[in-house]
Amino acid sequence: MSISMHSVSAPVFVRMLGNLLTWLDKAELHAQAKKFDVNVLLTARLAPDMLPFATQIQIAADAAKFGVARLAGAEAPKFEDNEASIAELKERVRKTIEFVQSVPAAQIDGSENKDIIIPRRDGSMVLKGEIFLKHFSLPNFFFHVTTTYALLRHNGIELGKVDYLGALQ
Amino acid sequence: MSISMHSVSAPVFVRMLGNLLTWLDKAELHAQAKKFDVNVLLTARLAPDMLPFATQIQIAADAAKFGVARLAGAEAPKFEDNEASIAELKERVRKTIEFVQSVPAAQIDGSENKDIIIPRRDGSMVLKGEIFLKHFSLPNFFFHVTTTYALLRHNGIELGKVDYLGALQ
Repeated sequence: MSISMHSVSAPVFVRMLGNLLTWLDKAELHAQAKKFDVNVLLTARLAPDMLPFATQIQIAADAAKFGVARLAGAEAPKFEDNEASIAELKERVRKTIEFVQSVPAAQIDGSENKDIIIPRRDGSMVLKGEIFLKHFSLPNFFFHVTTTYALLRHNGIELGKVDYLGALQ
Repeated sequence: MSISMHSVSAPVFVRMLGNLLTWLDKAELHAQAKKFDVNVLLTARLAPDMLPFATQIQIAADAAKFGVARLAGAEAPKFEDNEASIAELKERVRKTIEFVQSVPAAQIDGSENKDIIIPRRDGSMVLKGEIFLKHFSLPNFFFHVTTTYALLRHNGIELGKVDYLGALQ
């Protein structure tokens, strides 16, 4: 099999979001052991003008959702952005994984030269599918996934590179 | 053009490493304005048991270097891991970009099913080229690039998503 627009997007999103769920499980266990409310993490930030933990997860999920939806020309599920607990954030991530998995590979493959419209505050941006995936969607997704991981590590949750990457063999 | 093993690896590494160089430029300007030695950043960490800033940049560069070298079956340039300043780290990143750009696309394309051997402390791991790229090399690269960015933000350097992604239009 040759690499394709689907093979380099959906499975990457699904795998990393699955890894992220295991970090949140570990955060819950850690909070339980240390006897603090795990949901205090939701407002954690690495800098006062960076987005908080809950938003990092929301955007990571949205990057995956919009990544495949835009390439496939599919309707993305809507979320209210009102998750108030780790449990609710996990539910959102799970629903996002289900959506990403529901989009047929054939609907994403061949989208290299498709015009992808990205709405922005200051007017929309149009990128070709391949540029969108390689230089916007994947980097943006990994940004928010890694920032989520960094916030957990910064707050004392014990995670390592194996948790980040997931088991490979 | 269809997406390929080269098109989804080398240009992604080169672009993000180029973006990283601009963050380091901004860090230097910030330190100059605030009158501190920019090289104090080299030992900054997000958690006591996370790798420091200098190492994050070394590994980001190595992830790119080994990413293309392993897929292409090419010899990667060696670095001593002894950079003692932002200026030296920038030089390493620049040399890494040059190496990544020097590997012919045709030498990377078609490596989807090639066995890639990853040396690890506890014995080597073998992954198929496509799995290596999607689930090891790119996630690992983005991990260290994003952690570099996060450390700069955490230390007061003013960067935004446009700096992270680079100009897209």
